[in-house]
Amino acid sequence: MSDIEARLRAIEDRAAIEDVLLAYYAAVDSMCDLDGLVDCFTSDAVLDVGDLGLSRLVGHDAIRAFFAGVFRDTAHHAHHISNVRISRLECDEATAHGYVFAKAKGVGGLELFVHCKYDIELVRTAAGWKMCLFDEDAQIPIGDEVSALHAGH
Amino acid sequence: MSDIEARLRAIEDRAAIEDVLLAYYAAVDSMCDLDGLVDCFTSDAVLDVGDLGLSRLVGHDAIRAFFAGVFRDTAHHAHHISNVRISRLECDEATAHGYVFAKAKGVGGLELFVHCKYDIELVRTAAGWKMCLFDEDAQIPIGDEVSALHAGH
Amino acid sequence: MSDIEARLRAIEDRAAIEDVLLAYYAAVDSMCDLDGLVDCFTSDAVLDVGDLGLSRLVGHDAIRAFFAGVFRDTAHHAHHISNVRISRLECDEATAHGYVFAKAKGVGGLELFVHCKYDIELVRTAAGWKMCLFDEDAQIPIGDEVSALHAGH
Repeated sequence: MSDIEARLRAIEDRAAIEDVLLAYYAAVDSMCDLDGLVDCFTSDAVLDVGDLGLSRLVGHDAIRAFFAGVFRDTAHHAHHISNVRISRLECDEATAHGYVFAKAKGVGGLELFVHCKYDIELVRTAAGWKMCLFDEDAQIPIGDEVSALHAGH
Repeated sequence: MSDIEARLRAIEDRAAIEDVLLAYYAAVDSMCDLDGLVDCFTSDAVLDVGDLGLSRLVGHDAIRAFFAGVFRDTAHHAHHISNVRISRLECDEATAHGYVFAKAKGVGGLELFVHCKYDIELVRTAAGWKMCLFDEDAQIPIGDEVSALHAGH
Repeated sequence: MSDIEARLRAIEDRAAIEDVLLAYYAAVDSMCDLDGLVDCFTSDAVLDVGDLGLSRLVGHDAIRAFFAGVFRDTAHHAHHISNVRISRLECDEATAHGYVFAKAKGVGGLELFVHCKYDIELVRTAAGWKMCLFDEDAQIPIGDEVSALHAGH
């Protein structure tokens, strides 16, 4: 691979990795696009939201079932992402980090405003970059509001 | 156009489109730069903030008059943009999406904190990328605070 | 320098400048990484937070001492950056701008939610881009909460 090719590819990979994250949150905020949502993950991906009082989800079916519940229990929500930073970019693997703050309202009326950070592992697949690990933690202590909102899951 | 040229141009276009959005909000938050603000739009652009209880503005004069009113009625405001995503990039046209949350205080003391999303259509002109459609919608229901703040317009 | 080289370098510089800002705030939010924090600045850098009721800090030692105090007095905080815009990119110098909103809680229980903007001057050094001026101003008036939180400094 020429030097120009390698540099172009690094820039394109950076953009593609950001696009996976953007696609994931666009699907989350669509309140319906479960196919688009799981398509951001490898089939054996881990979505770990245990730190939020929720579960450690493994695989498309578990992720899909979790968000089906979120969509059912949420009146509206918005996830603003920021501080997206790629700390490792290998040929076919990458590590990224970012923040999200979300405003949400449950169908029962409970309102949330949460600040979280996440560490992500990604792999290059035949269908582009996918997340194989999404580990989300509270950045600001959130008490037990999240688990109250999703008490059914 | 060579492959390298096409790839470089796609990367530069992505950055240039983000820059138009950044320039627009820098002008909005300047509280004075109406020339810089309308320069982000084509002369026949549509700025549709009807979903916020405001108007559907067509053309530089209408956009300029609207923001002259906003600047007059606002004590201070800040627009934080995020989740900027380009879903279509053709040779001379593009579609982009993003979020903004804004904190604002009217000269009468009314305070607002709004979460909006927007869908944008852009075209490449001799003077660079410009927005020809900016369609802004409430992401979180905002009641009628915005129309109350800008009741005079 | 060929045209391709110049264009690639401009794109890489843009990304590298954003990475300095991301590294700075990652260090700030680490609540401990003083080495990583000062490494984002030239040795004679100015960090001017005078507009927030704080000090004008000059050089690594002053910046380090300031943040050692912040880390000691803060229970938790998170800095969400947005609207990062590069307005000047020369061969070895650049000017950038951006917003940050931060949620913080002091060890004494005082809670803050601040909206700031910053103007940054950067230079290219043998060790990459570094900030030589970071001038932070309140975007939304913040009263004297910040100085109250950091009253000891």
